[in-house]
Amino acid sequence: MSYRKAVQLACGLAGGSVALLAAAAVSHSRRKPAGEDRSGSGIPVLQAAQSWAGNTTLVPPATGQWDSNWDKREPPLIINSRKVDQETGEENLTSQLENYKAKASRHIFLIRHSQYNQNGQNDKERTLTALGREQAELTGQRLVSLGVNYDVLIHSSMTRARETAEIISRYIPGVEKVSCDLLREGAPIQPVPPISHWKPEAVQYHEDGARIEAAFRRYIHRAEAKQEKDSYEIIVCHANVIRYIVCRALQFPPEGWLRMCLNNGSITWLTIRPNGRVSLRTLGDSGFMPPDKLTRS
Amino acid sequence: MSYRKAVQLACGLAGGSVALLAAAAVSHSRRKPAGEDRSGSGIPVLQAAQSWAGNTTLVPPATGQWDSNWDKREPPLIINSRKVDQETGEENLTSQLENYKAKASRHIFLIRHSQYNQNGQNDKERTLTALGREQAELTGQRLVSLGVNYDVLIHSSMTRARETAEIISRYIPGVEKVSCDLLREGAPIQPVPPISHWKPEAVQYHEDGARIEAAFRRYIHRAEAKQEKDSYEIIVCHANVIRYIVCRALQFPPEGWLRMCLNNGSITWLTIRPNGRVSLRTLGDSGFMPPDKLTRS
Repeated sequence: MSYRKAVQLACGLAGGSVALLAAAAVSHSRRKPAGEDRSGSGIPVLQAAQSWAGNTTLVPPATGQWDSNWDKREPPLIINSRKVDQETGEENLTSQLENYKAKASRHIFLIRHSQYNQNGQNDKERTLTALGREQAELTGQRLVSLGVNYDVLIHSSMTRARETAEIISRYIPGVEKVSCDLLREGAPIQPVPPISHWKPEAVQYHEDGARIEAAFRRYIHRAEAKQEKDSYEIIVCHANVIRYIVCRALQFPPEGWLRMCLNNGSITWLTIRPNGRVSLRTLGDSGFMPPDKLTRS
Repeated sequence: MSYRKAVQLACGLAGGSVALLAAAAVSHSRRKPAGEDRSGSGIPVLQAAQSWAGNTTLVPPATGQWDSNWDKREPPLIINSRKVDQETGEENLTSQLENYKAKASRHIFLIRHSQYNQNGQNDKERTLTALGREQAELTGQRLVSLGVNYDVLIHSSMTRARETAEIISRYIPGVEKVSCDLLREGAPIQPVPPISHWKPEAVQYHEDGARIEAAFRRYIHRAEAKQEKDSYEIIVCHANVIRYIVCRALQFPPEGWLRMCLNNGSITWLTIRPNGRVSLRTLGDSGFMPPDKLTRS
């Protein structure tokens, strides 16, 4: 199964097919796909949460240390947990290790949706403004100018992200577009320091926090061993989601996500090396837009 | 004394004048200027280090908390430490508090120097390449296009930073250019996780670490109470210095500085609000350069 196909299976659940979910589960035996939006209501059903629901803390504390097995894909630990057969010698073990070792880098381009109509009464009415559409064109042009072959264009299922992705996708014809509910905007974790003009209720953090953490775990990890070439993936989503993902990916305190801000249509570029090292290449790059087109709404 | 003049006094020590140092010390009674490069050798003499030399740890651990008095400029604490006279009533105290309260925001544009000749035998020979000069032009054009009035252009005294600053300064005529030894490139703190191809000796961290921390403390803090208007300052320096400063400013673990990378000539924008909150507006923005001009050397 191709990488694109696998992502589509794990994400594109517009029809809510249980058969598709099962296929994805088989193809990604190390990844537990979340059963989302089976109701078609747009509200995710968080089955992924079950894998960590027993933990008292969702996210490990940031201490300045680096957990090299942060994505649970470090080869020696995988082998260990799978209890290698007693008959296999050391040489065999080494070759098995090679089978589990990532070989390629993953480049993730996190794009914040462009400007939208904030007066809309519901998500459907919160469509892109004229400037927002122009911003998305500029983002698409910049992405294609980088001269890499993109593997997939994933986007949050919210209107403003979907519309931004539609415009970007015209610049990369042939690249599959996949909608995902996990990436919808929300309240990832109580920000430290808090701010006075944005006070979500506890239930919002409770639900969104687990969902956005699930998005992080699904999309941000080193390459699977079978991936042979470096990949370039675009994820169009939201400011809070991107900032939380950046903190988690760099193993910085996730409570600090609100210490960063992002322009509409900006590019945040994460690279994940085969050894699990993560590098932030740019945060909120929007230098490709003329200053009079910059917004943060 | 104007803000520009004060910065020049604290930094522009080409002549190594002790009189200038003394004047700066008087004008900035809450800021201890480091006596640097008195020998003219380019090696900083770290007097600033004395203020924290008694501490066992140079940098507080990052925990996900926010120290609101991180820059030792929070008004109530200043007043407390100055022991307000017993005769002053509550009203008087409030008005005193106002005197100490920052009113303006500081915008700091951290620019990484552009590409340089890495084959040079010493700093003097490590001049900008032709592409590096072109990159600096692009950075200057972008900075001026933002339409703000810059207050000062500070740069590391290393050749590649000085040359980058010279080119940028042509786009903002009239803005004072100030050289500073604290901002020179170095090894700020042992990176976690470590990397194999860059292993400075312990003595380098020992010396550079204190110096780069001193640079952070000098330049990154909320506005002084007397500053009435928002300020826009450009600091041209080096990748390690900028990454360390970003970690410290956001109160993220400073050991994580190597989890970010920066293109040559890129713009990293920090905003410090009057209440001490810090926001990273962009990290390593280089979208204003055509992709074929991007380098990270």
